Amino acid sequence: MVQLKKEENFSEWYNSVIEENNLTDKRYPVKGMNVWPPYGWKAMRLIDTIVREEFDSREHEEVNFPLLIPEDQFQKEKDHIKGFDSQVYWVTKAGDNDLDIKLLLRPTSETAMYPLFSTWIRSHADLPLRIYQIVNTFRYETKQTRAFIRVREIHFIEGHTCHATFEDAEKQIEEDLDIMRGIARGLCLPFRVHTRPEWDKFPGAYYTKGIDTVLPDGRTLQIASIHQYRNNFSIPYEIYFEDENGERKPVHQTTFGLSERMLGAVIAIHGDDRGLAFPPPVAPIQVVVIPVLLKGEKESVEKAAGDASNRLKASGIRVRLDSRDIRPGNKYYEWEGKGVPLRVEIGRREAQENFVTAVRRDTGKKIRIESASLEHEIAALLDEISDSMLQKATMSEKAQERRVENLKDIGPGLNTVWWCGDEACGKSIDDETGSSILGMPEEKSSSKGRCIVCARDTEKIAVVSRPM
Amino acid sequence: MVQLKKEENFSEWYNSVIEENNLTDKRYPVKGMNVWPPYGWKAMRLIDTIVREEFDSREHEEVNFPLLIPEDQFQKEKDHIKGFDSQVYWVTKAGDNDLDIKLLLRPTSETAMYPLFSTWIRSHADLPLRIYQIVNTFRYETKQTRAFIRVREIHFIEGHTCHATFEDAEKQIEEDLDIMRGIARGLCLPFRVHTRPEWDKFPGAYYTKGIDTVLPDGRTLQIASIHQYRNNFSIPYEIYFEDENGERKPVHQTTFGLSERMLGAVIAIHGDDRGLAFPPPVAPIQVVVIPVLLKGEKESVEKAAGDASNRLKASGIRVRLDSRDIRPGNKYYEWEGKGVPLRVEIGRREAQENFVTAVRRDTGKKIRIESASLEHEIAALLDEISDSMLQKATMSEKAQERRVENLKDIGPGLNTVWWCGDEACGKSIDDETGSSILGMPEEKSSSKGRCIVCARDTEKIAVVSRPM
Repeated sequence: MVQLKKEENFSEWYNSVIEENNLTDKRYPVKGMNVWPPYGWKAMRLIDTIVREEFDSREHEEVNFPLLIPEDQFQKEKDHIKGFDSQVYWVTKAGDNDLDIKLLLRPTSETAMYPLFSTWIRSHADLPLRIYQIVNTFRYETKQTRAFIRVREIHFIEGHTCHATFEDAEKQIEEDLDIMRGIARGLCLPFRVHTRPEWDKFPGAYYTKGIDTVLPDGRTLQIASIHQYRNNFSIPYEIYFEDENGERKPVHQTTFGLSERMLGAVIAIHGDDRGLAFPPPVAPIQVVVIPVLLKGEKESVEKAAGDASNRLKASGIRVRLDSRDIRPGNKYYEWEGKGVPLRVEIGRREAQENFVTAVRRDTGKKIRIESASLEHEIAALLDEISDSMLQKATMSEKAQERRVENLKDIGPGLNTVWWCGDEACGKSIDDETGSSILGMPEEKSSSKGRCIVCARDTEKIAVVSRPM
Repeated sequence: MVQLKKEENFSEWYNSVIEENNLTDKRYPVKGMNVWPPYGWKAMRLIDTIVREEFDSREHEEVNFPLLIPEDQFQKEKDHIKGFDSQVYWVTKAGDNDLDIKLLLRPTSETAMYPLFSTWIRSHADLPLRIYQIVNTFRYETKQTRAFIRVREIHFIEGHTCHATFEDAEKQIEEDLDIMRGIARGLCLPFRVHTRPEWDKFPGAYYTKGIDTVLPDGRTLQIASIHQYRNNFSIPYEIYFEDENGERKPVHQTTFGLSERMLGAVIAIHGDDRGLAFPPPVAPIQVVVIPVLLKGEKESVEKAAGDASNRLKASGIRVRLDSRDIRPGNKYYEWEGKGVPLRVEIGRREAQENFVTAVRRDTGKKIRIESASLEHEIAALLDEISDSMLQKATMSEKAQERRVENLKDIGPGLNTVWWCGDEACGKSIDDETGSSILGMPEEKSSSKGRCIVCARDTEKIAVVSRPM
């Protein structure tokens, strides 16, 4: 069981809490390609469900494109190739035959989708096109891999849109931020939006907005990214439409990418020294019902626990009845470690007097709930837990913010600095502090200052951190 | 739109009905790797949902294993390799590096999973292990590809189980047949179970049961298969457990495979000269609501149609409101082609008198439904449609059955023949008739006859057909 302290050694705590609670199995013989056992996969699928609801409610349609991309099709947008070339896996043989055209495993699906888009889109009536898919993608990472954070087979969610104008694409990006807010609410996670510096944008993009969250050790993790492509891909891939005046124009495109890093952030930010702590919307088990038995009262207590469990299940709550013949204390410990947000204890008094005792994992608080209003009050409690988990995570994030005037003061967390905007100054922050420019925040500065490197006057601020 | 007659040219009808209704896009530049556009993907996901419900309700847990399998791991069970060797795609390079150990794209996941199973299973308390996954798998098909029926990127559902004894594994296979019955009910499809002849079993299996359905042209399609592995894989992959007496024993395993062929069968069997016909449980749109407008009454009719659509949606029915400004007749034609099982028409009379007119796609019958009981009656009608679709498909299947005494009488459909059981006789059926032995049916014969090839006395019957 988890002995490591999260604050003392975050990195080892993270690995051990994942392995002990069976969220992933890293014993698969290809490094960075991990097995999703039932408990971890259930959590990921619950996150996917939230993502689907957010996309679907904004009229994005789910599709599924092939994994393998022919080499010639991949090479049409030259910045894009340059960005991914060193990271792709190549299929060169099938059966005993060498392939005439090599096939690559998608690192992302622009080059699989866009040749088809050029046949799907003919006129302005076909726009906007808004689709997404949830698929496995592959990147040959050379850095050290880490469960859910840096892997070689990525569980990837990618939204792709096409629009008649740049302005329409800009509006889409605003909507993507709404989608992100909806998803983050489900994960009980705060996030920041940073427009990445030029040298750190997505290969082929006009600009990139990173969705970043701060981990407990002060490093930042990009959990999603949104890209404005303008017509950078539509011209080489010939995605043109005829506008109302019969004029042929390239579409403007955006993409929105998310991955299992969301699960990594959930684990890292909400977990504690007792183990995992799942927010109720993505908890594989939201409520565990535990009969607390003393000798001779077995029957009525077990019946009350079974009834409560069945009623909660029927109301749509993910519940587990734990009737194993081991001491209740051991069960409490185990389910806390697995991150179940709410425990329901039912003993002799509860069974006789028709109530249950609910215990919140986050606060330890015990709440008496009358059986008559069981479903309603448990659902309300789960909502309350979500609210407090988001609030707590938001406060931790705020505690990681600081305004910094000198390079030597740059530390863990989010350092806001004045920056002239030059790449040279940006990169020397990296060289001198080991932290780098995440990008420009959404909020603009209303005053002026001096670049933290060259001391020139500037109105620009940037956020500096050490990314995961 | 669909002009082809299903009876006259089934094969072309099948292709055109799929393309015209946007279930797949075959313009992707790698043959046999098709794009799933929104409508087709929605249908597939609804089938997946039924599959998940059937597995989950029988305590199978969903997992997700890596796609890429190292060559050495793949080669432990020798019949299995022989069966798949000519069909695998090989990853030999990553970035600029040649890989030390080649990786193959899973054609099926035995060799990805079983090395891990050997770490997951220690004692009898870990058994049974019952998992499934829904993933992309790859087979380098050399035969002509066909949408949903023979593809190179397969949408694959694979159940894997481990048991303490052969008898427990046999019971699992009975349960798999229950799962299959549940799924087939959702698809409104009949199916037959045939124990495949030795030479046609799954590579590495002890025996294979094929789940076959008959297509309108008299050919049969295997939509699923169930395999008893005995300990054929557990010995080479070292999946052993300690039994109650402390003895170390290899587990007994089964697998259950299903794919997008289920969707292919739904299209082929239920469709007609007007286009697709989806069974309600897997119809992406179950009900289309169409306001039938005459001049001057626009507002009340549109409001009534909008209300009906919202109420149906709120009750969990997949509904589409079609308010486009085109003639109702054109809409009827289009939604029939797309296979929507029920149309709801709302005109002036309906709006004034508070009812709707429902029209069944399968029978053309018009039904008056009072608004007060809208949700309830529409749900009941959808159930009725499912029942009639299953009944109709079952009758068509029965019409394809025949008992055959002479090789020259073997024709399309299911030919039941006497067979001595010898491979030589089995294969000569193939050579002489072009049809082949599907296998032995579940029902045993109670009498005796003479082998249709060698005329020896036998108690065995076999079913002969021309498989797709």
